[in-house]
Amino acid sequence: MKIAIVGSGAIGCYYGARLLQAGNDVRFLMRSDLETVRSQGLRIMSPAGNAHLHNLPAYATTGEIGPVDLVFIALKSTANDALPALVPPLLGPDTAILTLQNGLGNEEFLGSHFGHQRILGGLGFVCITRTAPGVIEHYGHGSIVLGEARGPGTPRAENIVATFLAAHIQCRLAHDMVWEHWRKLVWNIPFNGLSIAAGKATVEDLLASPVLRREVEELMLEVITAAGALAHPIDQSVVPFEIERSLIMGPYRPSSLVDYERGLPVEVEAIWGEPLRQALDAGIQVPRLSLLHALLTRLTTPPTLT
Amino acid sequence: MKIAIVGSGAIGCYYGARLLQAGNDVRFLMRSDLETVRSQGLRIMSPAGNAHLHNLPAYATTGEIGPVDLVFIALKSTANDALPALVPPLLGPDTAILTLQNGLGNEEFLGSHFGHQRILGGLGFVCITRTAPGVIEHYGHGSIVLGEARGPGTPRAENIVATFLAAHIQCRLAHDMVWEHWRKLVWNIPFNGLSIAAGKATVEDLLASPVLRREVEELMLEVITAAGALAHPIDQSVVPFEIERSLIMGPYRPSSLVDYERGLPVEVEAIWGEPLRQALDAGIQVPRLSLLHALLTRLTTPPTLT
Repeated sequence: MKIAIVGSGAIGCYYGARLLQAGNDVRFLMRSDLETVRSQGLRIMSPAGNAHLHNLPAYATTGEIGPVDLVFIALKSTANDALPALVPPLLGPDTAILTLQNGLGNEEFLGSHFGHQRILGGLGFVCITRTAPGVIEHYGHGSIVLGEARGPGTPRAENIVATFLAAHIQCRLAHDMVWEHWRKLVWNIPFNGLSIAAGKATVEDLLASPVLRREVEELMLEVITAAGALAHPIDQSVVPFEIERSLIMGPYRPSSLVDYERGLPVEVEAIWGEPLRQALDAGIQVPRLSLLHALLTRLTTPPTLT
Repeated sequence: MKIAIVGSGAIGCYYGARLLQAGNDVRFLMRSDLETVRSQGLRIMSPAGNAHLHNLPAYATTGEIGPVDLVFIALKSTANDALPALVPPLLGPDTAILTLQNGLGNEEFLGSHFGHQRILGGLGFVCITRTAPGVIEHYGHGSIVLGEARGPGTPRAENIVATFLAAHIQCRLAHDMVWEHWRKLVWNIPFNGLSIAAGKATVEDLLASPVLRREVEELMLEVITAAGALAHPIDQSVVPFEIERSLIMGPYRPSSLVDYERGLPVEVEAIWGEPLRQALDAGIQVPRLSLLHALLTRLTTPPTLT
């Protein structure tokens, strides 16, 4: 399969490299790391196998890449504004676009620009970071859930799943990708949000405080209520399940906290803003999500000089 | 009137000095500023008249002061634990105790230790700070509302109001002191709380953000709903009134933010915790107050070493 990786950060480089190693024609769109990767290659440290890839097919523009079978979007949603100009050279009549971005609204955004029939959504469950230009550290996990952005699985989606599986990446077909997003938000909305709003708190910090743990649970229930009203029912039993699962994470820093501490953009609108808007449109009260979104909006905006 | 000032910070020193200037027998309990005030006097800068008071009746212990007519509590509520040991030497059979502390629960706390019949509550509306040992800067306002902690006005309360008025302090008798507290919390709960939780935000910052302004209004409505359920009805029209009033404050820093920035204790339980508990006891949903209280609990606690 001919694949273009748009957004060659940790996620894009890791999955792209695995797909390349499995024999796919993978081409990477790169900006800041392009010169380093061309001269020194791409290095991946991973429990699934280290790799040092020389002569990586890395490009500065999508025009040099040209049309592909699959566009793999691994850019942060805060950079979505760049996509309408970046993606068109990659599109042939049957090109599919898979976005592995967090939160809600990314599939709809891409569909509005490139046609909804092209779009698949996905979620990566992976602990990974770019530690230096051209250097990716993969700490663990790595599975993907993907599916059509609208509607159940298709042969096209099954074929992409098979391509990932052939590259030794755990991958599962989603029959309702929107449900999968809401299901992941049950954890991300409270933990990623409160980790910033409560003053750089780890998962352990949040659960050690009885009043904050209670807010974690209440935020989960708000997300579940909103998802249910939007016809993506999630059972409330996931709340104790998610709490139990989180209690063994220790002083884990949610990805949004890591971004925040590094001064990088936080995906406030995809993770909190769009779920909030959808809940309000459905007539659902989500007061804690509303307050958390407002606080994050300000906390993640660099202060203006006054 | 013989008056003991317990808690000789800015508020205690200012009102105590005015009462002293009007001819009352006022005695100040002082700790950190005692030596400075004894050697250099107490200096007050105020639009209502500067003052430099030498030979101030300042004491290190309440035992030296002895029984008085009125104990005036101007300590922060975070130091309430000290009161059961401090107050008893000041009490005669008819001694009244007036607390000018913020939030809910202080009158009840004092009543449980010294008898509810002694207790009056009050609120000071004053912009004032201690800028150096023995130096108080009064920027403006200064009025007091006071009344019996439980029930309507009494001749005793009227007499204390008259004593303040004779000292040229604007003062009004409250017929329902608990209502007055809730009425002030309509402003303090959102603005003092969000000014900390939204990352050191001024009143202007909070109102300039549409999403935060909305949360200010929603928090005000939660406070009004809780007060109403507790038989202290406040009209919802105070919400636009408080917003209008706040829009002209400019980059004002609520007192809790000032304390927070100085590393001083913030009265989290009196201003957010006790109103939250009373609302929950009354069966009222106050989700935004609950989340804000949880965040403030962590934000105002010095992080433990991990």
